[in-house]
Amino acid sequence: MIQPRTLKGFRDYLPAAMIPREQLMQTAREVFRSFGFAPIDTPTLEHLEILTGKGSEETDRQLYQFEDNGGRPVGMRFDLTVPLARFAAQHIGTLGTPFKRYHIAPVWRGEKPQEGRYREFVQCDFDTIGTTSELADIEAVCVIDALLRAIGIDAFTISINNRAILTGLLESLGLADKTTPVLRSLDKLGKIGREKTAAEMVEAAGVTPEQADSVLRLAECDGEAESILAALPGITGGNETAAAGIERLTQIYRGALASGVRPDRLKIDVSIARGLDYYTGVIFETTLDELPGIGSVCSGGRYDNLAGLYTKQHLPGIGASLGLDRLLAALESLGRLSGVSKPCAVFIPFFDKAHRDDYLQLASQIRAAGIGVEVYPEPKKLGQQLKYADSQGFATAIIAGGNEWEAGTVQVKTLATKESQDVTYQHNAPEALIELLKNAV
Amino acid sequence: MIQPRTLKGFRDYLPAAMIPREQLMQTAREVFRSFGFAPIDTPTLEHLEILTGKGSEETDRQLYQFEDNGGRPVGMRFDLTVPLARFAAQHIGTLGTPFKRYHIAPVWRGEKPQEGRYREFVQCDFDTIGTTSELADIEAVCVIDALLRAIGIDAFTISINNRAILTGLLESLGLADKTTPVLRSLDKLGKIGREKTAAEMVEAAGVTPEQADSVLRLAECDGEAESILAALPGITGGNETAAAGIERLTQIYRGALASGVRPDRLKIDVSIARGLDYYTGVIFETTLDELPGIGSVCSGGRYDNLAGLYTKQHLPGIGASLGLDRLLAALESLGRLSGVSKPCAVFIPFFDKAHRDDYLQLASQIRAAGIGVEVYPEPKKLGQQLKYADSQGFATAIIAGGNEWEAGTVQVKTLATKESQDVTYQHNAPEALIELLKNAV
Repeated sequence: MIQPRTLKGFRDYLPAAMIPREQLMQTAREVFRSFGFAPIDTPTLEHLEILTGKGSEETDRQLYQFEDNGGRPVGMRFDLTVPLARFAAQHIGTLGTPFKRYHIAPVWRGEKPQEGRYREFVQCDFDTIGTTSELADIEAVCVIDALLRAIGIDAFTISINNRAILTGLLESLGLADKTTPVLRSLDKLGKIGREKTAAEMVEAAGVTPEQADSVLRLAECDGEAESILAALPGITGGNETAAAGIERLTQIYRGALASGVRPDRLKIDVSIARGLDYYTGVIFETTLDELPGIGSVCSGGRYDNLAGLYTKQHLPGIGASLGLDRLLAALESLGRLSGVSKPCAVFIPFFDKAHRDDYLQLASQIRAAGIGVEVYPEPKKLGQQLKYADSQGFATAIIAGGNEWEAGTVQVKTLATKESQDVTYQHNAPEALIELLKNAV
Repeated sequence: MIQPRTLKGFRDYLPAAMIPREQLMQTAREVFRSFGFAPIDTPTLEHLEILTGKGSEETDRQLYQFEDNGGRPVGMRFDLTVPLARFAAQHIGTLGTPFKRYHIAPVWRGEKPQEGRYREFVQCDFDTIGTTSELADIEAVCVIDALLRAIGIDAFTISINNRAILTGLLESLGLADKTTPVLRSLDKLGKIGREKTAAEMVEAAGVTPEQADSVLRLAECDGEAESILAALPGITGGNETAAAGIERLTQIYRGALASGVRPDRLKIDVSIARGLDYYTGVIFETTLDELPGIGSVCSGGRYDNLAGLYTKQHLPGIGASLGLDRLLAALESLGRLSGVSKPCAVFIPFFDKAHRDDYLQLASQIRAAGIGVEVYPEPKKLGQQLKYADSQGFATAIIAGGNEWEAGTVQVKTLATKESQDVTYQHNAPEALIELLKNAV
């Protein structure tokens, strides 16, 4: 006999965990679609050369790679951005621009398993490709706002910044070639504080203490959005790149408000940098006000050229990624997951064997009214079946035995309170029962 | 530069293909849930020993297998049944029985690519585990019926049979040990005809021509369901296993009718066998009346023991699998796929730059009413934008330029007919427009 077990770093999703995951993914799909983003899918396996060297050294090391039965070197995708770049390079002639897609799919990284981190996890990305328009940037903010609201989160903050502002400052300081190491240091500001960040910037990026101070002064610019926007030109010393960046950031901020994003949910935060090199314009992070410690649940930004490794066609774009696992953990912390193991609310115990077809017909009628219902498969004792119903998280049971079937009534029981009421029901007159269930579930 | 391409036998899904796929999967989820089936997921990768030897010799040969970075032999799942068996053995103590699950996920087989067959494809399975009840069998028929109806197919036939009837006949003929080769031959009856099937049975299974004739007489028993059911006891010579199988088949047939399955959609077909050894009871196939040639779009059956390789716990069950790719091909053949590349119906051209925020606000209001809408990101010429809208398959465009914004009206254009009408609209009075769109899309 073989021991049934999953691989280290992998996990099964049981119904109580899978039901809210599926619900979250469905909510995300509906929001993406409502903005005109269309779904795509790409293969799990890609030619190895498509994947290697396209992420970080870390993702290269973590890549699941092997030779397939035909001797081809292949790899399992480690994110959805590299496959999108390959996809866009291959199909953009057919698709045309602007191209707006979402992609919800698993990715694989052989990283050291840690609490809450797995070797297989689902990413949920949306991108608008082939336009540099500010409207696409504003819309990305609106999508994030709509996603969080649709998930049922009220208190959240979308922080926006524009990489071009720091790029401009670095240009004016003569540090244009040191952008990457400066960004890497700056990304730690929130975690290690000003002093250590400055020290690291001097050491790792080789800048002077004065230069580090200028960079940190920009990153620390804080306060009301409009006053930050007003202060930024002075801090960046009139550099042109920075000025254009400030203007774009202003447009995005005001445009998002005009589109209906609530002002308390929007923040200009010039300290956010996002480690990835490939962002060049606006960048986003989204935090939950009740759980700031879990980090950003939706992050992204604008990039200059998505697919330069696969095509000469210049493809600028903007996109972001919703952190499904983080959001689910957050919803659980906030006590917002029901923990039920059943995707339908109504349960019919089957305890009068002679009436099997009556139970089945009753269930069909309830389903035809758009209400999900499970019939217990075996004519066990009622108490045993109701115990099962409680353990699974059903809300309502419809109880009908010999007497009830003859009298033309059924008992509708609310499982949490154990309260019941009798309702008239016959196969040719199910209306009263359906009406009651529609109001109850 | 790296040539952007997919691996042989793999494919990208562009929006026009992915939109109906996603819709079909969502429909399946909703139907499964309405019967109390709950979603699960399992890892793509499993310990190799979980997978090898569990399918056929063919699936072993086609398995994607390799050593992971930790030196563990691993494989990519080739179906959803083996992972379900492992999952059930591992978790059934927590889950309890009856356990009803659905699982919609990709699987991988390194088979020779053929027209319409790929090395990565999605399976869509539902199963009820831990009960031998006839109610679960009847319900499986009802699920298949509900799936096809929900997909929008009217003319289909669910063929049902019970393996036990043939098993009983073979017992009575002294051929109990030859069930597998006899089944394999019998499975070809529809394709190669009576004579060749009989010859193959004699040759491959080593039965006498008289025995082959008895088996074929059973398989050829045809006609009205109730008359087949009445004839079967005579054909199977009163064997007990067969008699129990006939009784169960009768219960399933009548129970499904009582549950509301239309009689013209249900057929007793004692010729269907389904090649897989592990079915022991009722078996199903579902064909589309308009496209019988594409084969079964939903097949399955009852098995005695799901997870005997991983646990001593006896887990009988019943399940079936919806053939997504086949169904999508069928819907395409029937002209039932729209071919649109956009998941929302309404398009707003952005051609008056000064009114950017007005377009965005208009879009937010339409979305708040539950209607999806895309705003073109760049203020290009109107004609260019409407050409884009046509190519993407939008149904309706809302056109508003400087004059319209001032007059407090917008033009609602039906793209297919080029007809337009003016509707009053102001940000504080969107009702007339929303009402019109709700009726239009």
